[in-house]
Amino acid sequence: MAFRWEQQFAARTAHMSSSAIRELLKVTEQPDFISFAGGLPAPEVFPVAEVAAAAQRILRDAGAQALQYGATEGYRPLRALVAERMTCAGVPASVENVLITTGSQQALDLLGKILVDRGDHVLVDTPTYLAALQAWSVYGAAYVEAPADDQGVRTDALGPLLRARPAFIYCQPNFQNPAGVTLAAERREALVRLAARHGVPIVEDDPYRDLRFEGADLPRLIEHDARLRAAQTHEEQYAGGVSYLSTFSKILAPGLRVGWVVAAPELIGKLVQAKQGADLHTATFNQMLAYELARSGFLERHRETIVREYRARRDAMLAALADSFPEGVTWTHPAGGMFLWVRLPEGLDAEDLLRDAIAQQVAFVPGAPFHPGGGGRNTLRLNFSNSSPETIRVGIARLGEALRTRREAAVSV
Amino acid sequence: MAFRWEQQFAARTAHMSSSAIRELLKVTEQPDFISFAGGLPAPEVFPVAEVAAAAQRILRDAGAQALQYGATEGYRPLRALVAERMTCAGVPASVENVLITTGSQQALDLLGKILVDRGDHVLVDTPTYLAALQAWSVYGAAYVEAPADDQGVRTDALGPLLRARPAFIYCQPNFQNPAGVTLAAERREALVRLAARHGVPIVEDDPYRDLRFEGADLPRLIEHDARLRAAQTHEEQYAGGVSYLSTFSKILAPGLRVGWVVAAPELIGKLVQAKQGADLHTATFNQMLAYELARSGFLERHRETIVREYRARRDAMLAALADSFPEGVTWTHPAGGMFLWVRLPEGLDAEDLLRDAIAQQVAFVPGAPFHPGGGGRNTLRLNFSNSSPETIRVGIARLGEALRTRREAAVSV
Repeated sequence: MAFRWEQQFAARTAHMSSSAIRELLKVTEQPDFISFAGGLPAPEVFPVAEVAAAAQRILRDAGAQALQYGATEGYRPLRALVAERMTCAGVPASVENVLITTGSQQALDLLGKILVDRGDHVLVDTPTYLAALQAWSVYGAAYVEAPADDQGVRTDALGPLLRARPAFIYCQPNFQNPAGVTLAAERREALVRLAARHGVPIVEDDPYRDLRFEGADLPRLIEHDARLRAAQTHEEQYAGGVSYLSTFSKILAPGLRVGWVVAAPELIGKLVQAKQGADLHTATFNQMLAYELARSGFLERHRETIVREYRARRDAMLAALADSFPEGVTWTHPAGGMFLWVRLPEGLDAEDLLRDAIAQQVAFVPGAPFHPGGGGRNTLRLNFSNSSPETIRVGIARLGEALRTRREAAVSV
Repeated sequence: MAFRWEQQFAARTAHMSSSAIRELLKVTEQPDFISFAGGLPAPEVFPVAEVAAAAQRILRDAGAQALQYGATEGYRPLRALVAERMTCAGVPASVENVLITTGSQQALDLLGKILVDRGDHVLVDTPTYLAALQAWSVYGAAYVEAPADDQGVRTDALGPLLRARPAFIYCQPNFQNPAGVTLAAERREALVRLAARHGVPIVEDDPYRDLRFEGADLPRLIEHDARLRAAQTHEEQYAGGVSYLSTFSKILAPGLRVGWVVAAPELIGKLVQAKQGADLHTATFNQMLAYELARSGFLERHRETIVREYRARRDAMLAALADSFPEGVTWTHPAGGMFLWVRLPEGLDAEDLLRDAIAQQVAFVPGAPFHPGGGGRNTLRLNFSNSSPETIRVGIARLGEALRTRREAAVSV
């Protein structure tokens, strides 16, 4: 029996075909393996005891509510908390500006459902987040790569790309996945002004903001947009073109799957309709857990623990790279987040290197899949949040070894 | 600033525009209100203490795992448990046949993503589940209504409809939402044979199966399909055309959002790709909670408590309807589940009745939105699981009063 969907869906998911790499990476689950491939937070810093205590309080005081269906919009106190914090940051928001999502991945999916029509294109700076590309490809999105450097997207080159009316601009302003790059302060304002002028929405995906190791926080794109609109329209509630996505995955726990999106109330209304069909609502118990731990101020203290640990891991990786990697290889110096990005000399293929590395019991993710338009074959992503400093030293040494061997082989050919 | 999506999405969600009714129903949150409108389980039977104990065990013994990212496919022991139970029911399944979803609503959404192309039609028996229509409309599905009676879809009339190649057939075989109707035993086998002959997939949505108040369980459609295939192909693992959806929402707690789909491994592979873009994975902690309570046998014992309670509530509603409703009104007698379905005399409009009912502090959902092709204006859905027998008696008496008044008004006009 052959069903039509087999061909249909294959065409829609062509961008997803990194299955060869996925097969390669399966071995990383073996015990002695050192993997810089995943995108996992450090489980050592999960606040297990605090979650357990909050779980008991919630089930004791409001068990029936925690286990019952909830509103699609999300748990109202949590929405109010998000709105309040956005308001404090200069984006006047009420609960109507906030939708709680099943991780911020779901917000990417729902936005694709609403903003993308088959054949539309989305403007991304490459390399970019792989699972965003996956989410939108299903809706028929094509991608246009905006020029970018180590300060993020080059706003001086965006004008012609915006005149072509992309469905939206996708941007991770802080320590983006995969490259660890942060969008420069002056480019943030420029990007928002350009997008507003051309009537192009922005999807601001900001999961790593709280994981800053040094330097001052930079204003969000939505803050710039709110200021710009306030000057023009004197509206009291945010109704602009930026959708701001964040999550509890990095500062609390990803396994709870609680994220949120802040946007114009009209767009939130559409997202709610889409979410109703997608999963009715995000798990009530999990939203109440996140709320309990956020409102008490615990997460702000806990954030310091995470930042201290991840900073040490990043420093260990930067030091190990300087020690172990041969000349001609460069890498980013992220000021936060979980990833850094390595560029090999032209002609070296990261997928070939991965085969050698796996033989040395160490893994990473090759950079090509993060480039929707092709390219990036000589790049790769390293995760530093999920390995101890000692493991990082050992793993990077192994990788440096694999790299030297591969390079000599390339030169001798 | 006008964005293109405003028009686009409005067209895609035309089916969803029951916002007038949603507005009407907002008042049901007031304290003295009796609502038969929602689709909520009884919170009194949620096993709060057992969930709390399981939460403590999981966080104590495997806290880091419970709070970490997990595989998109789902928590492996839970998948294995589902596979084992399907195998015992005669559907030879391994973990590759199983995907854990964020409630079974997500399985509906993911199946729409894969099976529906814009302009496709889906074959449904009406009235049918509203949020399924919502999920698939976004992907451009149209609906064809299959003739049905109080034994479910009329398989004797399906041939011509199947020759028109719908994307799939949607069927809730047990105590379906909204009408409470159960598909007759002999029609189950006939439906599966017809679908197989025409190469049309079936989406079997079975959230209420465990809520049977009387009579013996009937074989699932996927069981019939597995038998049929085994006779033809001698395959050891299920690879047929039925996708079987179920959930922990009715026998454990909906607020955890854990469901599953059993299907051919190839289709599961596509669903996994789609789910990766949709929400990465279902909350790990919640899957472990469901597994803990399912594997211990607790849920099977707990099911008896729920069934006893819901049976009493259904009986109370049937008795109250017989006492309070005027002649000419008929209703279904569901053998399980959470809903029954009322048919008013032709010419009476359930939405008008709802206005009167709300004035009497009682609510229900009018039947028209459950009919994608229009019709059903003289029908309505009553939920009995979320009100005590005493509340049901009072509420149905109020509704009977409203109905008599409305009817007299209609006659005098």
